[in-house]
Amino acid sequence: MEKTYLYKAVANRIVSQVDKGTFRPGDRIPSIRDYSKQSRVSINTVKAAYSYLEDCCVIEARPQSGYYVCARLPEIPPEPAISPDQLSPLKISPSALVAKMMRDSVDSKKIQFGAAIPDPALLPSKKIGSSLTAEVRRNINLSVEYNVASGFKQLRSQIARRMIKAGCTLNPDDLVITSGASEAVFLALSSICKPGNTVAISSPIYFNFVQMFQLLDLRVIEIPNSPTEGINLKVLRSALKHNSVACCLVVSNFDNPMGSSLSDARKQELIKLLGETATPLIEDDINGDLAHGDDRPTVAKSWDTTGNVLLCSSFSKTIAPGYRVGWIAPGRFIQEILHRKMITTIGSAIPTQMAIADFLKNGGYDHHLRKIRKAYAEKVARMTDAIGRYFPAGTRVTRPQGGFTLWVELPEKVNTVAMFAKSDAQSISFAPGILFSNDDKYAHCLRLNSAFWSVDTQWAVKTLGQLAHELIS
Amino acid sequence: MEKTYLYKAVANRIVSQVDKGTFRPGDRIPSIRDYSKQSRVSINTVKAAYSYLEDCCVIEARPQSGYYVCARLPEIPPEPAISPDQLSPLKISPSALVAKMMRDSVDSKKIQFGAAIPDPALLPSKKIGSSLTAEVRRNINLSVEYNVASGFKQLRSQIARRMIKAGCTLNPDDLVITSGASEAVFLALSSICKPGNTVAISSPIYFNFVQMFQLLDLRVIEIPNSPTEGINLKVLRSALKHNSVACCLVVSNFDNPMGSSLSDARKQELIKLLGETATPLIEDDINGDLAHGDDRPTVAKSWDTTGNVLLCSSFSKTIAPGYRVGWIAPGRFIQEILHRKMITTIGSAIPTQMAIADFLKNGGYDHHLRKIRKAYAEKVARMTDAIGRYFPAGTRVTRPQGGFTLWVELPEKVNTVAMFAKSDAQSISFAPGILFSNDDKYAHCLRLNSAFWSVDTQWAVKTLGQLAHELIS
Repeated sequence: MEKTYLYKAVANRIVSQVDKGTFRPGDRIPSIRDYSKQSRVSINTVKAAYSYLEDCCVIEARPQSGYYVCARLPEIPPEPAISPDQLSPLKISPSALVAKMMRDSVDSKKIQFGAAIPDPALLPSKKIGSSLTAEVRRNINLSVEYNVASGFKQLRSQIARRMIKAGCTLNPDDLVITSGASEAVFLALSSICKPGNTVAISSPIYFNFVQMFQLLDLRVIEIPNSPTEGINLKVLRSALKHNSVACCLVVSNFDNPMGSSLSDARKQELIKLLGETATPLIEDDINGDLAHGDDRPTVAKSWDTTGNVLLCSSFSKTIAPGYRVGWIAPGRFIQEILHRKMITTIGSAIPTQMAIADFLKNGGYDHHLRKIRKAYAEKVARMTDAIGRYFPAGTRVTRPQGGFTLWVELPEKVNTVAMFAKSDAQSISFAPGILFSNDDKYAHCLRLNSAFWSVDTQWAVKTLGQLAHELIS
Repeated sequence: MEKTYLYKAVANRIVSQVDKGTFRPGDRIPSIRDYSKQSRVSINTVKAAYSYLEDCCVIEARPQSGYYVCARLPEIPPEPAISPDQLSPLKISPSALVAKMMRDSVDSKKIQFGAAIPDPALLPSKKIGSSLTAEVRRNINLSVEYNVASGFKQLRSQIARRMIKAGCTLNPDDLVITSGASEAVFLALSSICKPGNTVAISSPIYFNFVQMFQLLDLRVIEIPNSPTEGINLKVLRSALKHNSVACCLVVSNFDNPMGSSLSDARKQELIKLLGETATPLIEDDINGDLAHGDDRPTVAKSWDTTGNVLLCSSFSKTIAPGYRVGWIAPGRFIQEILHRKMITTIGSAIPTQMAIADFLKNGGYDHHLRKIRKAYAEKVARMTDAIGRYFPAGTRVTRPQGGFTLWVELPEKVNTVAMFAKSDAQSISFAPGILFSNDDKYAHCLRLNSAFWSVDTQWAVKTLGQLAHELIS
């Protein structure tokens, strides 16, 4: 009996490895001797297990070669690949909802109005791929070796040059390359703040930042944001006066989710205001290059004379999200940021940095930007039209001048988490409003990613409108 | 006067950008009109500045083309690239010392006995480069797009299969890809521990971990480590009994710096001991593949039946440190680790993960390992000989059976931070003992990276020996 149990346990483990993809159809599995040694079970038990699996058509022996996973597994129904998502709207946590949305974002069966991923057709995939292969060939040793924690020097040089257009005088050594703008903002928050500290933010704010505040045990003061004027500076001034604020986090251009920007005058005022109390500003400019007009806007950092601003950005929306190349210009916090970057990751991957550097230098990035700016302006306009046509009366929607997200305010009766559960059943993803704040004030709002708007996905906007109608009546 | 000041200020700013590499010789700088717009100074001022810079031979006008940085800057002596390192041994902080050592590690003028970087000649640079270019060509869209936070599935599958040799049954979904083992261990520590918590470690321990404890505000209990038997389990048992320990961090095979390993029996005992109090074990196996013998050792995780072990490793010592590909198998902590990875970085760069997956599958990794294991065994043996020949009487040195670091205990009189300052002047880097602990108990010890041992660098071991002799007398 004991022995029967043993060989079946071994067989079951192998079946589970096949189901979960450790071994795939056609793969050779370890020899009986190797498997016995590795698993610390007797050769006879492994023999019995393999023989049983042969009988079940899970594996097959090939003469003089070994055991292979069969091309099909007719007898054994596969396990579900992922457990089904439980979307009971009242119980779900924001972090589970974010995780669900991020999983959906790589699910080709979903309509991608959720996570703010760029349209794959508007990424310069072939050109950046060519930059990558050419650079790795040219610098084969440099590409495999450790580099400095701040990142590939030529990339930092290219970024410094580009930021002149945003009004910034940066030098390569003022920059640290990060894994997207997310790591940049996380490094900034974790370097400046201690647990329990307070951060002033414009509200609504990108949901990943809300998750960061929770991870770092930070409190937030949510300052109202206007879709046309950006963060309310009067309220911010008052908040700074009456609270001990460790830092302020603002997306100064085409912010996510509202698409609002600060004018040059307001940027200057923000810098002056924070300068009075030396309160650091974490400025996220991830959408700056995605202005719908001809020129990119300035950044608030261009008025910073004391190193008080930590400017963060990335190439995830314009070139290649999968390359994970972002950066931070941390001003007077450069040493803390560099130290933390080195200790936590040693540095970012070098080949992808080489590729982005080469593309910025030789790949026609400006030409590429002109093309995608126009395309995203078009998508934003068309999706706005569709929202107007299909959503309930009383719906409001932002008019962003850059980027590709739309913030939609529905009649108060509509709970967008309930709506998310219903749209999920129809394979349409979007971002429910509650994710963009620490409290429930945006329960009737949602963010739509217009990058995936096309005539083929127009029906999905209509469906969302219908779901909203249903939730009112 | 005002105007003179202005155009000179503009000119000086450009000179500084040239010196610091934002603009390089031969680069075109912005047109007068663009520069004026970007810098918010008048066209006349920029004209005057450019004209002045032409006179100084910093830039030159090319007809119908624009302004370019001259090939040489004869009039202006360059600024020093980095400020000289101040190495007053009594004042230097461990973190500054670590930063200095890491900067040295990419300085081609230094003898690299410091940071534990592998010998570049023993990295499969061309093969992994070919894997990278082939994979990017095959999967051009996949390579640029966002992927799941856990990382490239095929890579996770390859790692799961390889870990069978270490006695582990892992499935791809049990793994999260990280930026080297450093990010893996940092994710583990920050997911498990709160500020003020206590971690039990074997001592001496890799200096980056000491820095992590400080960043995360953790306390440590340093358990004695034996070069032949690994962490002292009796002392660990007593420490667990008398303290509230949040987790235990151990390098179970060929640990850094001592090179010690736990036997299978001790690994089992460690798992049992920690299991009694459900104290999580962070197990770092970064050197497991670098056994000097034919087979790699098991990992403690292979005896873990409750998901209590977070196993961390990477390909930084064997394939390509610059690719920043490591991983963690976090057991029952998988959700926390995945969440934190997603929030802090979204995920790791995809192309380098594709390359490593392809190399593991098709690149002859086992053949490569056989080659480098032999080479590192040889280097370790030769450097040990040289230490015996040149270092003072009373010196002790470890006999690692894997990896490539040697831990050297000098006579108590020798302060290795003072020695570091002297060896730095001779362009030889090593790792002073104080970095490997929270207190000063290893002030007379040092770690040597034998990966850079060769007949050409033998003189440097001799020099270190002489410096040690000088510090005794």
